[in-house]
Amino acid sequence: MGSNLDQLREALGEVSDLQEAFRVLAWDQETFLPAGGFEGRGVVLSTLGRRAHDLFVSDRVTRLLEATEGEVSSLDPGSDEASLVRVTRRDQERDRRIPSELVGEMATASSAAAPVWREARAKSDFAMFAPHLARNVELSLRRAEAIGYESRPFDALLYTEPGMTTSQLEVIFAGLKESIVPLVKKIAGKADAVDAGCLHGDFPEAPQLGFVNTVIERLGFSFEQGRMDISAHPFMIGMNPGDVRLTNRVSRGLVTMAIFGGIHESGHGIYGQGISPALARTPLWDGASNGVHESQSRLYENLIGRSRPFWKHWFGELRALFPEQLAKVDAEDFYRAVNRVEPSLIRVEADEVTYNLHILLRFEIENDLLEGRLKVEDVPEAWNAKMVEYLGVKPPNDAEGALQDIHWSFAGELAGFPAYSLGNLMSAQLLAAIRNDLPELDGQVEAGEFGPLLGWLHERVHQHGRKFTPAELLLRVTGQELDASYWVAYAERKFGDIYGLN
Amino acid sequence: MGSNLDQLREALGEVSDLQEAFRVLAWDQETFLPAGGFEGRGVVLSTLGRRAHDLFVSDRVTRLLEATEGEVSSLDPGSDEASLVRVTRRDQERDRRIPSELVGEMATASSAAAPVWREARAKSDFAMFAPHLARNVELSLRRAEAIGYESRPFDALLYTEPGMTTSQLEVIFAGLKESIVPLVKKIAGKADAVDAGCLHGDFPEAPQLGFVNTVIERLGFSFEQGRMDISAHPFMIGMNPGDVRLTNRVSRGLVTMAIFGGIHESGHGIYGQGISPALARTPLWDGASNGVHESQSRLYENLIGRSRPFWKHWFGELRALFPEQLAKVDAEDFYRAVNRVEPSLIRVEADEVTYNLHILLRFEIENDLLEGRLKVEDVPEAWNAKMVEYLGVKPPNDAEGALQDIHWSFAGELAGFPAYSLGNLMSAQLLAAIRNDLPELDGQVEAGEFGPLLGWLHERVHQHGRKFTPAELLLRVTGQELDASYWVAYAERKFGDIYGLN
Repeated sequence: MGSNLDQLREALGEVSDLQEAFRVLAWDQETFLPAGGFEGRGVVLSTLGRRAHDLFVSDRVTRLLEATEGEVSSLDPGSDEASLVRVTRRDQERDRRIPSELVGEMATASSAAAPVWREARAKSDFAMFAPHLARNVELSLRRAEAIGYESRPFDALLYTEPGMTTSQLEVIFAGLKESIVPLVKKIAGKADAVDAGCLHGDFPEAPQLGFVNTVIERLGFSFEQGRMDISAHPFMIGMNPGDVRLTNRVSRGLVTMAIFGGIHESGHGIYGQGISPALARTPLWDGASNGVHESQSRLYENLIGRSRPFWKHWFGELRALFPEQLAKVDAEDFYRAVNRVEPSLIRVEADEVTYNLHILLRFEIENDLLEGRLKVEDVPEAWNAKMVEYLGVKPPNDAEGALQDIHWSFAGELAGFPAYSLGNLMSAQLLAAIRNDLPELDGQVEAGEFGPLLGWLHERVHQHGRKFTPAELLLRVTGQELDASYWVAYAERKFGDIYGLN
Repeated sequence: MGSNLDQLREALGEVSDLQEAFRVLAWDQETFLPAGGFEGRGVVLSTLGRRAHDLFVSDRVTRLLEATEGEVSSLDPGSDEASLVRVTRRDQERDRRIPSELVGEMATASSAAAPVWREARAKSDFAMFAPHLARNVELSLRRAEAIGYESRPFDALLYTEPGMTTSQLEVIFAGLKESIVPLVKKIAGKADAVDAGCLHGDFPEAPQLGFVNTVIERLGFSFEQGRMDISAHPFMIGMNPGDVRLTNRVSRGLVTMAIFGGIHESGHGIYGQGISPALARTPLWDGASNGVHESQSRLYENLIGRSRPFWKHWFGELRALFPEQLAKVDAEDFYRAVNRVEPSLIRVEADEVTYNLHILLRFEIENDLLEGRLKVEDVPEAWNAKMVEYLGVKPPNDAEGALQDIHWSFAGELAGFPAYSLGNLMSAQLLAAIRNDLPELDGQVEAGEFGPLLGWLHERVHQHGRKFTPAELLLRVTGQELDASYWVAYAERKFGDIYGLN
């Protein structure tokens, strides 16, 4: 039978196998599933989700966790073994509170919602999607009740960011708003300083996709251990250390969509491929949190991918693919263009400065839905009002408003958006630590040498998987707790330079 | 809780969900899985296979089967309910004899063998694949022992063709050999009567694939409820009634590879899409047997797809895509070319007349392996000797010999090949019945009207899924047991006409 720890690993391995099957089917649903397959797919995902849940919360796993706790108590808390028992226990105590019926209902509801969201967005018909959002709110509340919370359901759903609370987020967002809104105003006064016209034109899709795949492979994403496909909304999903999948989308009219979408997802993918294979088939084989995951995607997308040295390196290759379209711009023009700040409608296309305001809006709407201050049918109105208030723009339709994100079709999983802002903040804090250790970073990026950065991230962040909480990881890596001032300083310096504000 | 039958359906539904997940992952493995993912995939398939097996043979299912047997005893044996209980009981009694460890080992071994087979075939290195074939023989024998047999392990593995035995197959093949060998000889004497040169040339892949997809959609395959991808070896795999997937392969140098590969798989796919949705998520949602499945693919591929009226209809469209390549041939020339008979090396490219001899060879080699008369390392020699004896051709390498089929990488599943010959025989017997009911069939095919044929097959064959054994189905549909003389008469008439033998 092996030791208790071996038995625990084997039991957790089976849970992981069922979850991996779930992920392959979820990926398939977004990429290749024929229209007729959606209905049946939901049932299968529901069964897999329930079975994985039931096995994870089984008495056998509970007993093995208790038995191994003593076995690992003398080990370094940072060891794989001690971390496995500690983190698994935390997860399992939470999941034992969630009835398996609810897990199945969430999977079924998500699977039913996805195609409706797609159609509703295409038709810009919020009413069509509303029942699925209502069901999502209901299931999220039931999940929050099951997990337990003091006063705010959002707190329970935030378990994906261990240590973070709704009121802490409110403080963070208030601070960000205070620095972003004046910055956006100052930039608006110099809007003409940056011309992004060169990004629009006629850019055939195939060379765009070829370019971005070349870029992300150089950044460190392995196509031997992963793939890249097309989907409505780009995403990363990791099956196992040898199979980490990305999707992207491409616009013939806008050259940046595929480039930054692909780099963003590659940041997630590089993280997934960098987790120690020793953690595979355990609950530790994943990012430390969605926020930490997002810190990697945003670091690659924005802090590296929208940096001046990055485009000094890559612009020549891009222009060689589109010599006529990019005839009149140089690397510096392109760098400035991809950093144009302009309040806009779509989160995933938002510039770095205004992006966090898109998250704030969703954070507020979700809390209002969960706490009964807002009805589902009034979401578009609330959305549009907040867009006007925070960004000064009003969606002409719901496709460009409340229907733009796939996230609300993930039933029972509200509270996911703040991770994006947490990721932004962490990415700047991490970059400061990286610059300490790699003072030649800019020169390396300009020379197309992405290995030192990759090695740093693998060593300090990626390999650990879920062994540490976001707060523990940040403290280990940067010596500090989360500090939003790094991101504010980064944004003020970068955009102050681009827009000549200082 | 619902009735016992409802509970049985729910339990079988969960088994079916796990099996469906298995099939999606198996499809993914052959189409899109990155190289790094193969190792991990095997583990997941093993867990899914074992869990589905354990659930199916559980005491709960056994108890529910016993409880429902009384409930359905007064129903028509052909009803969905009575068939469900009868067929499930037969399956379950067999599967209860197979240890779940063996099921897991088969999945792991198959997953490990698939990439090695691919590489070994590419390198034509039989020794590289030999350990996986040896493991397959070992697991097939263990499976046969578990299922039980009187004297021939092949009998136990033949459970996929209920009612068929190894010695019956020996009689059938002896009879076929007796009619085929003289026919091949007569044809060889008039080899020049058919020129297949027009099939070889430079045919860009994309229009070929577009053409075959147009054809199979017209035959009745729905792309709303299925897909078509590319893989090393074409196959069909059905997930559920709304998601039936095909793969194909394409040769730029040979225009027939994709066309007949696609039509063949579409025959399987049309069958899968035609099974009554009421049978979904039960053991009845599948073809009656592999042989019956093959009767559908071979009927569409050969009896329809290589018929004169078929090419009278389609040749114009094909020539419009390749006007230069096909400039010098007409529909009749093309019809004759696609029916050229010539002993050759590759089963899936073999003509209708010699095809069954390829199966005979595999049937004999597998029996020799299972009964200890042949060692794995001696398979290539045995293969090549039989090729010379039956077909008069000798493979120049193992890629074109013993390594050509993916089947031997399906560990524990030897005995699969005879289904192809049984399918050939049944297809001719079915066609005779179809012609009785649809005397205008040739005219309809020539007019591109495939609906009457599709309707007949849906009504008589497809919708029933696994409710009836192959023998029961054949008796219901044709009024007779399996009779090889239909195929012999078909082949002698068709090729007698083409080669002017009579």
